[in-house]
Amino acid sequence: MTLDSLHRTAYGDDHEAFRATVRQFLAKEVQPHADQWEKDKIVPRELWLKAGELGMLCPTVPEEYGGLGLDFGYNAIVDEELAYGAGATLGFSLHSDIVVNYLIAYGSEEQKREWLPKMVSGEVITAIAMTEPGVGSDLQSIRTSAKKDGNHYVVNGQKTYITNGQNADLTLVCAKTDPDVSPGWKGVSIILVESSRDGYRKGRNLDKIGMDSADTSELFFDDVRVPMTNCLGEEGKGFIYLMSELPQERLSIAVSAQASAQGAFDRTVEFVKDRKAFGKPVFDFQNTRFTLADLKTRLQVGWAHLDWALARHLRGELTPEEGAAAKLWHTEFQWDMMDKCLQLHGGAGYMNEYPIARAWRAARVTRIFGGTNEIMKELIGRSL
Amino acid sequence: MTLDSLHRTAYGDDHEAFRATVRQFLAKEVQPHADQWEKDKIVPRELWLKAGELGMLCPTVPEEYGGLGLDFGYNAIVDEELAYGAGATLGFSLHSDIVVNYLIAYGSEEQKREWLPKMVSGEVITAIAMTEPGVGSDLQSIRTSAKKDGNHYVVNGQKTYITNGQNADLTLVCAKTDPDVSPGWKGVSIILVESSRDGYRKGRNLDKIGMDSADTSELFFDDVRVPMTNCLGEEGKGFIYLMSELPQERLSIAVSAQASAQGAFDRTVEFVKDRKAFGKPVFDFQNTRFTLADLKTRLQVGWAHLDWALARHLRGELTPEEGAAAKLWHTEFQWDMMDKCLQLHGGAGYMNEYPIARAWRAARVTRIFGGTNEIMKELIGRSL
Amino acid sequence: MTLDSLHRTAYGDDHEAFRATVRQFLAKEVQPHADQWEKDKIVPRELWLKAGELGMLCPTVPEEYGGLGLDFGYNAIVDEELAYGAGATLGFSLHSDIVVNYLIAYGSEEQKREWLPKMVSGEVITAIAMTEPGVGSDLQSIRTSAKKDGNHYVVNGQKTYITNGQNADLTLVCAKTDPDVSPGWKGVSIILVESSRDGYRKGRNLDKIGMDSADTSELFFDDVRVPMTNCLGEEGKGFIYLMSELPQERLSIAVSAQASAQGAFDRTVEFVKDRKAFGKPVFDFQNTRFTLADLKTRLQVGWAHLDWALARHLRGELTPEEGAAAKLWHTEFQWDMMDKCLQLHGGAGYMNEYPIARAWRAARVTRIFGGTNEIMKELIGRSL
Amino acid sequence: MTLDSLHRTAYGDDHEAFRATVRQFLAKEVQPHADQWEKDKIVPRELWLKAGELGMLCPTVPEEYGGLGLDFGYNAIVDEELAYGAGATLGFSLHSDIVVNYLIAYGSEEQKREWLPKMVSGEVITAIAMTEPGVGSDLQSIRTSAKKDGNHYVVNGQKTYITNGQNADLTLVCAKTDPDVSPGWKGVSIILVESSRDGYRKGRNLDKIGMDSADTSELFFDDVRVPMTNCLGEEGKGFIYLMSELPQERLSIAVSAQASAQGAFDRTVEFVKDRKAFGKPVFDFQNTRFTLADLKTRLQVGWAHLDWALARHLRGELTPEEGAAAKLWHTEFQWDMMDKCLQLHGGAGYMNEYPIARAWRAARVTRIFGGTNEIMKELIGRSL
Repeated sequence: MTLDSLHRTAYGDDHEAFRATVRQFLAKEVQPHADQWEKDKIVPRELWLKAGELGMLCPTVPEEYGGLGLDFGYNAIVDEELAYGAGATLGFSLHSDIVVNYLIAYGSEEQKREWLPKMVSGEVITAIAMTEPGVGSDLQSIRTSAKKDGNHYVVNGQKTYITNGQNADLTLVCAKTDPDVSPGWKGVSIILVESSRDGYRKGRNLDKIGMDSADTSELFFDDVRVPMTNCLGEEGKGFIYLMSELPQERLSIAVSAQASAQGAFDRTVEFVKDRKAFGKPVFDFQNTRFTLADLKTRLQVGWAHLDWALARHLRGELTPEEGAAAKLWHTEFQWDMMDKCLQLHGGAGYMNEYPIARAWRAARVTRIFGGTNEIMKELIGRSL
Repeated sequence: MTLDSLHRTAYGDDHEAFRATVRQFLAKEVQPHADQWEKDKIVPRELWLKAGELGMLCPTVPEEYGGLGLDFGYNAIVDEELAYGAGATLGFSLHSDIVVNYLIAYGSEEQKREWLPKMVSGEVITAIAMTEPGVGSDLQSIRTSAKKDGNHYVVNGQKTYITNGQNADLTLVCAKTDPDVSPGWKGVSIILVESSRDGYRKGRNLDKIGMDSADTSELFFDDVRVPMTNCLGEEGKGFIYLMSELPQERLSIAVSAQASAQGAFDRTVEFVKDRKAFGKPVFDFQNTRFTLADLKTRLQVGWAHLDWALARHLRGELTPEEGAAAKLWHTEFQWDMMDKCLQLHGGAGYMNEYPIARAWRAARVTRIFGGTNEIMKELIGRSL
Repeated sequence: MTLDSLHRTAYGDDHEAFRATVRQFLAKEVQPHADQWEKDKIVPRELWLKAGELGMLCPTVPEEYGGLGLDFGYNAIVDEELAYGAGATLGFSLHSDIVVNYLIAYGSEEQKREWLPKMVSGEVITAIAMTEPGVGSDLQSIRTSAKKDGNHYVVNGQKTYITNGQNADLTLVCAKTDPDVSPGWKGVSIILVESSRDGYRKGRNLDKIGMDSADTSELFFDDVRVPMTNCLGEEGKGFIYLMSELPQERLSIAVSAQASAQGAFDRTVEFVKDRKAFGKPVFDFQNTRFTLADLKTRLQVGWAHLDWALARHLRGELTPEEGAAAKLWHTEFQWDMMDKCLQLHGGAGYMNEYPIARAWRAARVTRIFGGTNEIMKELIGRSL
Repeated sequence: MTLDSLHRTAYGDDHEAFRATVRQFLAKEVQPHADQWEKDKIVPRELWLKAGELGMLCPTVPEEYGGLGLDFGYNAIVDEELAYGAGATLGFSLHSDIVVNYLIAYGSEEQKREWLPKMVSGEVITAIAMTEPGVGSDLQSIRTSAKKDGNHYVVNGQKTYITNGQNADLTLVCAKTDPDVSPGWKGVSIILVESSRDGYRKGRNLDKIGMDSADTSELFFDDVRVPMTNCLGEEGKGFIYLMSELPQERLSIAVSAQASAQGAFDRTVEFVKDRKAFGKPVFDFQNTRFTLADLKTRLQVGWAHLDWALARHLRGELTPEEGAAAKLWHTEFQWDMMDKCLQLHGGAGYMNEYPIARAWRAARVTRIFGGTNEIMKELIGRSL
């Protein structure tokens, strides 16, 4: 079972060669350890270094900053292979598909030289801190503040649901540099906070329904002083920067959702052909075939759409609404896939030792993170 | 409101120029008469001649037989524009997308010379007769027989649900030339029956839920004698021929379904922005926006998939399962679109004077014809 | 196939005896003519007189006004039997379940003496006129006015979607007696307008998707003078009166929806056991059985709920929210039933000659009328 | 938030008094420890003794065997209160609603005297072992054997997914006493196996998606010798006995499903009224209200149906098909409730510290256990 032979249109031969490398890496370095990492609720830092060596981290970083200068298709391939069946959730996508773009697009020359090479190599692991307890995704309402004090910002506040929060060396913190400006989003800036700073504190590694190996944290900032040069781009433009990266962030979620759906499907077809009920393979019941036929149909539709969206994104044409639609459709589909596949497993599906149980638990968050699917609908609806 | 600016990938400039012609034709020759034809439950034969003049019928017929020798993309464009908003259902798709292919692919030189030029010009309207009362789509069980008698076949039997049945000059009749062979499908042949033959009789123009202007008939064959040269291709190969044309037939249904969904959507967005409820436009309710956002998302996904499928079909790569999946997905989506759009119209949606009511009624059959969607699932399921 | 043996709890022996009478009446007086009335788009007035003789109209009218003084269970039985399979939609429910209540509850002694006996006998057919073109169900926005002029009101305005509008002798017209009061609903009164009044004019009998035999009209009021005694109850209380009758109105819709769902189910089970596909009864496919099992399950759940709601209503305990929930659930279920049953009919389901096609078309309006299901959700949601 | 004031019809005052006792017990003895037990993946045996003291275990056991001789309504009340919000899943329902019935109905006088009093007191915890690895719910295919050897059976085999498997003192083991008889179900018997027997071995306490505190085990039987008097009822009648208890087993699942749905709903309404997004309570978004209105509607419908089913069961009238329909409907509803409520929690919903996450994980198994919902559909479908 692989992600090949799906009549894709988004990739060229170089992409597919890269896919082979990624797949090999996952088979050797990830799958054998996945069960342990899921228990540990974190992935060892060494894994990042190994992935960095193979060019799997931040492939779009320009060569001058230690990267490969490739297109987003390479990110997508890493996402696909990881989601299809690695068995663990790593934090690569956040690091490579999202955080690094902010530095590439808005970072100062100094920031780029300092961070990009190490992000490519895996020496530095990154996070982005938006959500706050009780506030959700509403950036205008954040309470974390970054007050100027001489040549420094003093950051105070609390964040939660921070992917890579335990492992991170560097966190992009969304904070209010101007609490009084109206509308509120004009006061939001992105401040780079190193984990070594005084007053920076990691909270709990949160116990989640799934994606266990992806550490997800509370973070606390108590009078954390960072130099003013740690502001990303211009002060007060944080909200605009965040908006600008949304199409890729959402497309990235869609890519993983679609690939994980394919993974669950392939494994379930195998399972129902093998498993017998009432004297014949579960596959031989019309209900099973109809369920799988419906899912297979949507896989076909989904890949066609994903490749259309990837092609548009690679040409810089994907709109925020189109990205939102991709996130919405592929994650809703992913969920329906997971839940139907679990059901086809019968009692086994409820046991965590079966891959479908882990995939199902992991999938539940994709309709929520990166902006809930309700927010996607709101965005798409408003654009009409 | 048009079908432009959807970021399509399937068509070139020539296709789009042709689209403009088709659209003009519909605006001038179809839309003004649509209400009347829906009442008449048939379309006048003159319309076919006018459409033929513009190259809208059977565009894929080779030039040597009076055609334009174009690709299926031109058929698809006619389908799209008709479905998007012509207001009437013509029988062009059956004639141009389905019947003509049998003659091109399997017709004798004599048959091609006789029929193709007139099918292109609209002088000859065609039908295909498969379904029989009480038998449905199961070709193996058909009872219509074509018995050899000297140099003739004598056709006896009864067909129903025959699109273009009232207007047709020529009908491709699926009949058993060998009732005893096993399995039954090996005895099925396709016989060309002209409407002028003795013993050929049109039954009722059936009263349907929708697609009123598309005449749909019972046909009776009582000792209809046709020369043996009226057999299409080889005797006993009818079933195989029919199977070979299914991907295009199903893709054609998918094309129309998607375009009609877009038409309903565009008109509904306009309606809800205009119509007020409880003091504000219906569009301003979150429920309306969320419903439309979900539909818009699926339109985006659907067009991407359709273009993928069209591209594959133009390259001759679309498999029967992929065609079945296209038919299944787009018609299910079409229905959901129609039903949600009707609901957004409130009481107006239930009134036949509103376009959504007509579009909704028309759409109900697409999950049934061309093989029910249950049959699509069976086919896709078996291929796994 | 009947509505018996469903383990109902709402009715006693007398109710069931009445049911037998109703069923006989429908078999003799309605079913044989249903096809014709559907074509005529109206039911003959004689039918009302015959129904009246048997006590089928307005059974809750007290004996002193010529009625039988029964409980709403008798109305529900008429609704059930009609919806289960009469083949035509009569306007009895509006007359007996809704309009008559206004007169019983709020009518003057004089109004009661004049109208109730004739409503019971069927000599007088009634309607209620709320909806106006472009305004929908929002009573506050109505434009029809009833201005005082001496001892008269002068009614001006236009109504639409009026059930029984063609046959009606008496219409309860919702009109603004005070256009300036705020909030607007305080200016709404209910005025009794006889069809014989000058300036009263019936518009078109509207062409609907279904429920063809239920005449549905536009009504026009041009300086219609009616005596002030034609005001129902107190001036300015129309809105409150209308609200007070909603639970019963909505329960009545729920009753019909559930019974029509049972009718479609019973007929479809029979159809799929009879009809063969691919050499075996359609019933023998697992997909058919699963679809029917799901529908049967919801029939069971629905009847239990309906009887709970009927019992509560008979005790005067059914809240507006509970009535709204009943309307919402049973009509959504009805629709799903109709659509799945039609699909199980294959091509036959699209032909108007099959009962499922008529039932399906009729059912589409129940999610819209009596307050759209979106309004139901709004009401229920607000009550939380 | 409680389960009162739902306009129930199934219970009398005595039931409701018992409910108060149960609720108090849960608040004091269960809720404070729930988090710990979920981590422990088991509940302490002491809890059973405490519950036994209050009459919460096996309330239907006749007084002569140490029970209270009450009706199943008392079981249902325990199920409801536990499911509504205890925070942990105990194994009471299996013990009190299912296992005990076999002993009451088919046990020998000796078996009753030995086991029933201790089941009531909680001194003996019971399990039933049907499912085997790779075989699922298909009793005909079980491989566990009970061979006669003198006055003993020698039991060999392996079972899995056994609720209470870790805590159980006594297990009802479905085994083949006659492996050759045809059809296979005629060879199935139920053998009582005490956990103290040689050769009886508990396997892993399985790691499940949810219901963590309900221990679920593999069991191994290696030449376990039990006296022939340990056969329940007659040899070879195991299958028939199992079938006879299905209506109550399925009703019991339906009861818990409905109550847990109500619990999730009540907590979510509270959450969305409290939680703000984009400057207003999440409740104030129309999408939230519509979602909740739909769920509230189905709660109303569900309780009405449940009380209808309970009343029928208490009268001994509930058929296997009706029980299957109850299990199907309430568990499907429960799931939709859980998933929509989790979504309304946003990111918090994915965190195990929130009750909705635990309730959601627990709920996933109810569509699978007690016979998958696909089996329910098959049963209901066949009965048509």
